[in-house]
Amino acid sequence: FFKLASIIPAEEAVGYMKAAIEKSYGTKGEKIIQMNFAAVDAGLEGLVKIDVPESWKDAKEINAEDAKRILPEYIEKILKPMNAQKGDSLPVSAFLGREDGTAPLGTSAYEKRGVAIDVPEWNIDNCIQCNQCSYVCPHACIRPFLLTDEEVKNAPVGYKTKKATGAGELATYQYRIQVDPLDCQGCGTCVVACPAKEKALVMKPLDSQMEEMDHWYYSVDLSYKENPMDKYSVKGSQFEQPLLEFSGACAGCGETPYAKLMTQLYGDRMYIANATGCTQAWGAAAPCVPYTTNKDGDGPAWSNSLFENNAQFSLGMVLSVEQQRERVSMKIQELMETIKEEAFQSTAKKWFEFYNEGHRSKADSKALLSAIENLSLTGEAQELKAFILDNSEHLTKKSMWMYGGDGWAYDIGYGGLDHVLASGADVNVLIVDTEVYSNTGGQASKATPIGAVAQFAASGKPTAKKDLGMLAMSYGHIYVAQVALGANPAQLVKALKEAEAFDGPSLIIAYAPCITHGIMKGMANAQVETKLAVDAGYWFLYRYNPDLKKEGKNPFILDSKEPTLDYNEFLMGEVRFTSLVRSFPENAKVLLAQASEQAKAKYATYKKMAE
Amino acid sequence: FFKLASIIPAEEAVGYMKAAIEKSYGTKGEKIIQMNFAAVDAGLEGLVKIDVPESWKDAKEINAEDAKRILPEYIEKILKPMNAQKGDSLPVSAFLGREDGTAPLGTSAYEKRGVAIDVPEWNIDNCIQCNQCSYVCPHACIRPFLLTDEEVKNAPVGYKTKKATGAGELATYQYRIQVDPLDCQGCGTCVVACPAKEKALVMKPLDSQMEEMDHWYYSVDLSYKENPMDKYSVKGSQFEQPLLEFSGACAGCGETPYAKLMTQLYGDRMYIANATGCTQAWGAAAPCVPYTTNKDGDGPAWSNSLFENNAQFSLGMVLSVEQQRERVSMKIQELMETIKEEAFQSTAKKWFEFYNEGHRSKADSKALLSAIENLSLTGEAQELKAFILDNSEHLTKKSMWMYGGDGWAYDIGYGGLDHVLASGADVNVLIVDTEVYSNTGGQASKATPIGAVAQFAASGKPTAKKDLGMLAMSYGHIYVAQVALGANPAQLVKALKEAEAFDGPSLIIAYAPCITHGIMKGMANAQVETKLAVDAGYWFLYRYNPDLKKEGKNPFILDSKEPTLDYNEFLMGEVRFTSLVRSFPENAKVLLAQASEQAKAKYATYKKMAE
Repeated sequence: FFKLASIIPAEEAVGYMKAAIEKSYGTKGEKIIQMNFAAVDAGLEGLVKIDVPESWKDAKEINAEDAKRILPEYIEKILKPMNAQKGDSLPVSAFLGREDGTAPLGTSAYEKRGVAIDVPEWNIDNCIQCNQCSYVCPHACIRPFLLTDEEVKNAPVGYKTKKATGAGELATYQYRIQVDPLDCQGCGTCVVACPAKEKALVMKPLDSQMEEMDHWYYSVDLSYKENPMDKYSVKGSQFEQPLLEFSGACAGCGETPYAKLMTQLYGDRMYIANATGCTQAWGAAAPCVPYTTNKDGDGPAWSNSLFENNAQFSLGMVLSVEQQRERVSMKIQELMETIKEEAFQSTAKKWFEFYNEGHRSKADSKALLSAIENLSLTGEAQELKAFILDNSEHLTKKSMWMYGGDGWAYDIGYGGLDHVLASGADVNVLIVDTEVYSNTGGQASKATPIGAVAQFAASGKPTAKKDLGMLAMSYGHIYVAQVALGANPAQLVKALKEAEAFDGPSLIIAYAPCITHGIMKGMANAQVETKLAVDAGYWFLYRYNPDLKKEGKNPFILDSKEPTLDYNEFLMGEVRFTSLVRSFPENAKVLLAQASEQAKAKYATYKKMAE
Repeated sequence: FFKLASIIPAEEAVGYMKAAIEKSYGTKGEKIIQMNFAAVDAGLEGLVKIDVPESWKDAKEINAEDAKRILPEYIEKILKPMNAQKGDSLPVSAFLGREDGTAPLGTSAYEKRGVAIDVPEWNIDNCIQCNQCSYVCPHACIRPFLLTDEEVKNAPVGYKTKKATGAGELATYQYRIQVDPLDCQGCGTCVVACPAKEKALVMKPLDSQMEEMDHWYYSVDLSYKENPMDKYSVKGSQFEQPLLEFSGACAGCGETPYAKLMTQLYGDRMYIANATGCTQAWGAAAPCVPYTTNKDGDGPAWSNSLFENNAQFSLGMVLSVEQQRERVSMKIQELMETIKEEAFQSTAKKWFEFYNEGHRSKADSKALLSAIENLSLTGEAQELKAFILDNSEHLTKKSMWMYGGDGWAYDIGYGGLDHVLASGADVNVLIVDTEVYSNTGGQASKATPIGAVAQFAASGKPTAKKDLGMLAMSYGHIYVAQVALGANPAQLVKALKEAEAFDGPSLIIAYAPCITHGIMKGMANAQVETKLAVDAGYWFLYRYNPDLKKEGKNPFILDSKEPTLDYNEFLMGEVRFTSLVRSFPENAKVLLAQASEQAKAKYATYKKMAE
C-alpha cells in the first residue's frame, strides 16, 4: 500500500512496520520476528502489475458451483444478498414467515468459500478405512461413503471406490473417502490423523482438486443406508451424517469435531442451548447456519443465549419439552382406554415401555404414529387423534444439550450451570475447554492453567486451573467425563453415549486446542497435541458414572495412564507457555514448576479416587 | 379478638381457626396440633378485664434505663423517633453530616427491649470460669469480666466476684460473669452450655433480675485490661470485647455466635461485606446497628450488598484498602529517604517488617504514628508527614471479611464467590450455613440436605447437599475449614486464626442451627445439636491449609472422628426430617436411607483425603 500510494517514502513506512512488529511479537521470539520481517520485504518486492480487461467493468458474479444446483428460495433471496453485504437493501417482506426469528438449517452448504490453498487428496490404495480422517475433521469436509454396486456403476468419471472391509452388512458395500475441496479450510488435520503406513491423504493445491466437487455432490446424494456398524464406535460414528458442516470456525479448530460428533450421534432429535462464545460465533454467522438436516428433514433445534444464563435457558427448554411430551402421552393414554384396536394397542404399549430410550423411542414413535393414522375415529376419540397427530413432534424422546466454552461454563455462566446440574434435571452439557476466552481475543478464564500467558495474565496466570469436573463429581448424582478427542477417540464416543443415556445431569469437559495456544507444530497437529497433553499428565481422561454405585462399583474410572511424557516438554510446545519463559523468566521458573507439581498431585488424587 | 369484637360468633371463629391449624400444622404431628388448639382455647378462656387509669391518657414515655445514661444525639434525634414509628416526621436536616448513608455503630445498646420471660442468674459458687456461656451466647448478653481489687471495692451493692483462676496476670484479677437482662432473649443456650457439675446458671423471671442492670453498666464501664490469656482460645477469646451485641436475631440463633467471635478476634480492624439474608437483617435493622466499637472507638466497618454480588463487593473493598495502604507506605518510604531521625527510622523499619501481620501491625502503627507526630519538618517532608497523618487509618493491616448464609454462598452469589476465591486475593469468607433460606421463609438452597423438607422441597429435597468446601479445596490455593461451634469450639477458634493469617483466600463454612430446622429439644439446645450433627457424621469438621504443603505435609486435616451416633437418630430430632416421614413415608424411606449412605461415603472420602 505504502509503495503504491506514496503517502510517505516506502522505506520509512517499512521502518515503522518493522518497529511495530518488534513491539508486538518481541515476546514470541526472534524466529517469529524474522518471519514477519520477511513477509514485509516479500510484499515490497513482490508487486506485480496486472492488467484488467475493460469488460470486467460490467461483469456479473457467477458461481460455477451454485449454477449446478437448484437453490432454495432462502438462499437466493436472503443468504446471497446478505453475504454480498447487501442485507440492508432487503425489504421486511423478504422475512415473511420468519417473524419468530428462526432460520433454516443447512445454509452453510451454499457458501462454498474455496479458501484453502491445499486440500487433501485421497489415495485409495493406502487407505485402511479407519474413518479417523473424518472423525477429526473440524468442518465435515472429508467423509466416508458406502455405495451399492448400482451406485458405483452410475458414478461420475474418476470416482473410485474399494470393497468395504468389515463384517456383516458392511462387507456388501463399496467404500470411498470423499473430500469437499470448496468447504475445506486446508488445515491438514486429516492428513496428520491418518494412521496408514503410507499416508492415504496428501495435501494438494486446491485447483488440482476441483473435479472432486462433482464427486462430492454425487456422494452426498447417495441413497440412505442404515448404519451397518455400531454408531457408538470411532469408525461407526462416521457412517452417520454429520449435522454440523462447513462452519466458520478456524482451520484446525479443536471445538467443532466434538460438536460434529455430537450431531452424528444425536442430531436428528436434539435441542442445543448454545452459550455465547466461539461456539456461537461459528455456529450462527447469520445468514449462514452450519447445523443441517438429514434425509427426513430432522436436525438439531439450535438456539443461542447469553454467557450468564445459558444453563437456565437450556433447563427451560428441558422443562417445556418434557411437559409437552407428557401432555401427548396423556392423550395417548386416554385413547388407549377407549380404542382397543390391536395394532394401535400394541404399538402404544411398546412406545410407553421404551418411553425414555432416545434412539429406540424414535423408531417406536414412527410405528405408533402410523398405527394412529390408520384409525378411523369419531367424536372425542377423533379429537384425541387429531391432537396427537398435531403434536407428533413430541413423541420422540429428545436429546437435550447445552453447549459452550470455558468462558461460559467455568466463569460467567458457572453459577447457573452449577444450579442446573445440582437440580438433578436430565440435561447434557458439553464444554469445549480452550482454557481461554477464545472468541474475544484470549482473556484468561478460570480454566486457564497456571503459568499460561493470556490477556489479563500477561506475566502468567498465577493460580491453578479450576477443577470443574471435581465440583460436579462432589454432588454424587452427576455423570461427569473429561475427554480429549485426539488422545482417546474411543473414550470420547463412550463418554458421549453414557452421558446421553444417563437419567440425570451429565457433564462432558472436552479439551479443545485453539489458535490462541500457539501450538508450535501448527493447527494440523491440534489433535496430536491433545494426545501429548494426556501423555504428559497435563489433561486427564476419566468418567464418573453414578449408576455404577448401584452395582456396588466405584463410580470413578480413570482413563488416563501414568504420564509418559515430560510435563515441561509438553508446555514448551506451545507459545502460551514459552512466551512466559521469554518475557518473565523468573515467573516462569516458579509457575511452571508449580504447574508440574500440581499436575502430579492431581494425578495422585485421581488415582486415589479410582482405587 | 373475635370474642371481644363479636364480628362473627366466637365459637364459629374458633372452628375456622382450628381448621386452619390442622391445615397448617397437619404434617408436624398430632402433638403440635393439640398444642395449638390448647393455645386457642386458653386465649378464649383467659380474657381478663383490665381497668386503665384515666391519667394514662396523657402519660409520657419514660425509659427507666435510658434515664440513667446520657444519650448520644443520634439516639435522641434519630433512633428513638424511628423506633417509635415516627421516622416519617424526621426532617432531612436530622441527617446532616450523614449524607453518605453511614450510621454510627453501637446503637443496639440503646434499645433495651426486655423481651425475655426468663433470663439466666449466675451462681458464683458453682462457676468454674470456663467462659463457655459467653462463647455460645447469640446476643452477647452474658460476659466474663476481670476486676482489680480497687474496682471490686467500688462495685455496687450485691455485685459478687471471685478470684480468677489461671496462670500469670489472670490470677491477679477478680472474676465475674455478668448478665444483661434487658438485652437477653431468654434462649437459655448459656445454661445448656454450662459444663459445671452443678449448673452455675439457672433461668429466673426477668423481673427478679432487674437489679443486674446496674451491675451490667458497672461491668461494661470497667477499665480496659490487656487480655491476660491467648485470645485464640475458647476461654481467652471471651475476655475480648464482642463488637457485635444485642442484634435482632432469633433467640438461640446459630449464626450470631460465629459473627460475634469473629468480632472479638478481629473487630477492631475489620471490614465486613455482608450478603443479603438473615445476617444482614439482624445486622442492620435500621436505625439499630448491633456492630459496635471498643474503648478506642474502633469497630467493624460494615456494609451490605446483594445476594448476587457480595463477593465482588468485598473484593472491591480489598483492592481499595490495599491500594490506599500501599500509597501511605510509599509516602513513609519517601520520608525515610530524607529524614534520618532515629526513633522514626527504627519504628518505620519495624512497621515495614511486620507489614502483613494484622494484630502486630496495629501496635506498630501506633508507635510509628507517634514517632512521625514528633518530627518537626518543613517543606516537602512536612507535606509527606501531613499526608501520612491524614491517612493514618490505613497504617494498620485490615482484616477483610465477607459474610453471609448459604442462600448467598451456595446459590445466588456462588458464581461471584467462586470467582473471587479463584482469584487468589487475600479475602476471608465466613458462611453461616443454615442449609435453607432462613430469612425469606425457609426455601431450599443447594445447601439443603437430601430428604429435608423445605419450601420448594415439600416432599423432601431429592438431591444431595452441595459440597462447597470440596470445590474450594479442589483449587489447591484456598484455605478451607468446616466448623461447628457447639461440637468443637476449640477447632473453630483455631480455624478462624488460621484463616485470617493465611495469605490468600480463606473460606470457613459454619454449621448454624436455625428455627427453621425444628429442633425438637428447642433452640436452647442449638449448640448441642451441632455436636450431635458431628457425632452422627451429618456434619464434618476439617481444615485444609495450603501452607502445610510447603512443609511437605498433607494440607487436609480431618477434625471429625468416626461417627458414634446413629445417623437416623440425629435426623429424627428435627422436624425438617420427621415431617417427611409423616407426610411422605415412602419418600422418607428412600431419601433418608440415601442420606445415611451418602454421609458414610462422604466420611470415607474425607478419611481417604486425610491419609
